[in-house]
Amino acid sequence: MKVQGFAGGTLDRADQIRTNPARLAEALADPRARLLVLDGLDPVAGEDGDLAWTSLPPGASLQQMILLGVDERGPVFAELRSEIPHGAAFAPAVWRLAPLLRPEALALYGCARSMIDWHKRHGFCANCGMPTHVTKAGWSRSCGGCEAEHFARVDPVTIMLAEHRGKILVGRQARFPAGRYSALAGFIEPGEAIEEAVARELWEEAGIRVHSVRYVRSQPWPFPSSLMIACIGQTDDPALTLDTTEIEDAMWVDADGVRAALAGDPDAPFIAPPPIAVAHWLLRHWVEGVG
Amino acid sequence: MKVQGFAGGTLDRADQIRTNPARLAEALADPRARLLVLDGLDPVAGEDGDLAWTSLPPGASLQQMILLGVDERGPVFAELRSEIPHGAAFAPAVWRLAPLLRPEALALYGCARSMIDWHKRHGFCANCGMPTHVTKAGWSRSCGGCEAEHFARVDPVTIMLAEHRGKILVGRQARFPAGRYSALAGFIEPGEAIEEAVARELWEEAGIRVHSVRYVRSQPWPFPSSLMIACIGQTDDPALTLDTTEIEDAMWVDADGVRAALAGDPDAPFIAPPPIAVAHWLLRHWVEGVG
Repeated sequence: MKVQGFAGGTLDRADQIRTNPARLAEALADPRARLLVLDGLDPVAGEDGDLAWTSLPPGASLQQMILLGVDERGPVFAELRSEIPHGAAFAPAVWRLAPLLRPEALALYGCARSMIDWHKRHGFCANCGMPTHVTKAGWSRSCGGCEAEHFARVDPVTIMLAEHRGKILVGRQARFPAGRYSALAGFIEPGEAIEEAVARELWEEAGIRVHSVRYVRSQPWPFPSSLMIACIGQTDDPALTLDTTEIEDAMWVDADGVRAALAGDPDAPFIAPPPIAVAHWLLRHWVEGVG
Repeated sequence: MKVQGFAGGTLDRADQIRTNPARLAEALADPRARLLVLDGLDPVAGEDGDLAWTSLPPGASLQQMILLGVDERGPVFAELRSEIPHGAAFAPAVWRLAPLLRPEALALYGCARSMIDWHKRHGFCANCGMPTHVTKAGWSRSCGGCEAEHFARVDPVTIMLAEHRGKILVGRQARFPAGRYSALAGFIEPGEAIEEAVARELWEEAGIRVHSVRYVRSQPWPFPSSLMIACIGQTDDPALTLDTTEIEDAMWVDADGVRAALAGDPDAPFIAPPPIAVAHWLLRHWVEGVG
C-alpha cells in the first residue's frame, strides 16, 4: 500500500446525475450498472485486487440505492441495508482484506461503508422527528414533515505528533493491541481551526502546549465517517500530564526508534500503526521528510 | 483583523468539566458565571471589543445551557434558544459587528452561534425519531429512546485557488455582491481526502484538473457549522467549463490584479472577499507567500 488506506479513489462521483431525475433513472436502468457486494458492512474481495460485484436486483428502487459514481464499466451502486450492525467499531474483516485490495477499491469501499452506515442511523429527521427518505441519489435524506434536507456527515478529526528536540510523542489507548503506539487524535469541535484543535487535544490529553502546527496529509476513515487531518506541532516543554481516561500511556521517541518501529524491528520501542492508517504515514513523513 | 474571522479563540473549553456532574453543577452555580448576550443568533457588542454579557438567569437549567468554557473571569455559558431562526443564511449583523470585535471575542461568538443553531435543529434522534436531551454540558444530545449520543456537527469544506502560470482562478456565485469574486468552495464528501475533494470540486465547478494540492490554512465558519480548509492546486490546462448552477462567472487573475483587489483599488479586476473570510487570507498568501 503506497498511500494511506481509503484515499486514492478514482471513481467519478458524477454529482450532476444526482439531481437529474432522468439521468438518475437511466443509470438505475443501465444494464452495465453494478452493485457492490458486502458482507454486512464488511468488504468482499473480487478478482485482481478488486471488490466483488453483482448486478442490480430486479425492480431496484432509488430509495434503497446510493449512486456512488460512474466508471468506464458503467454506474456503480451500493445498497442501503437495514439489518447491518452499527459500524463505528473495529472491523477485523477490513484489516484482513485491505492489503489485498487495490487502493482505489479500498477507497470505494470506504465511501460505501460510511454512506450505508450513515443512512442506517439517520432514518428520522433531527429537526422534527419525522421519517426521512432518500434524496439526491443517496447523498442526502429529506424530511417529509419539515422538508429539512440532511447531508451525510463527515467528522473532521485531528491526528498529530508533538515534536521536541528531535523526538516525537506517541501514545496508546487501552483498546490498542499490546505494544502499539500511535499519534494522538481527537475530533475538531465547532469554533476551532485545525491548528487550534491540535493544540487543544495535545493539552487535554497529554498536558503539553504546542505551537507552529503544520498540516501533513489527510485521510477519509470510514469508522463511521471521520476525515483524519494529520499534523505536527512543536513544544518547548515535554513534561507530560496524561488524561488517563483517553490515553493509557505516552512517550517521547527519537528518529531511530520510529524508524525501527516502521521497519517492524522486534527491538523497536513500540509497534507502529499499519500502513492503512494515516498515522503510519505521519510517522514516515517525520523520519523521512517525505510522503 | 490580523487573522481570519472566528479563529483565534482563547477560551479554555474545559472538557474535563463537561462529563463531571459535580464540577458542572459548580460551574452553573458559580456567582462569576456569565451568559453571552445575543440578539436572536446575532452578536451584541460590549465594551472594548468584547461581546456583551449578563449573569445567568435564576434557576438556570443544564438543559438550556452550553458551557462554552472557562476564562480568568469564570465559567462562560450560552443559552439554547427555541425561537431563533435557522442560522445557515447570511447574517448582516455579524458582518457589521465583526470588525469591532477582538478576534477572540468573534471566535467565541462563532462557536456559540454554531452550537445554539445545532441544538435548535437537533431536538430529535436521527436514529429513532424520539426527542433528545442535552448532555455533556451542551456538547452533545442523547436519545431517551435508543440511547444514541449525537455530537455537534462540524462540516469540512474545501476552499481553493487553482494556479496556472502566475495566475489564479477566482469565481463568483450569483448571490455575491456586485463585483465580488472569491475562491471556489465545496463540502468534502465521505470517502475523500482533503486534496481529493479540492480536485473534485474544481473539476465539477470549473472543469479543470488540478494536481499538487497544498494546504494553506483553515477557519471555523459558523453558517452554520463549516470548517473551511483553504488550499492551492496546480493546473496544466486553464480552459474553463463552468457549472453555472454553482458558479455565475470565473476568471484567471495575475498577482497585480489580486494585489489591487486586496488593496481595495477601484480599478482592480474584482472586489476581494473581506478579511473575515479565509479566502481573503488565501489570496494574500498567494501574492505574499506568507500568512
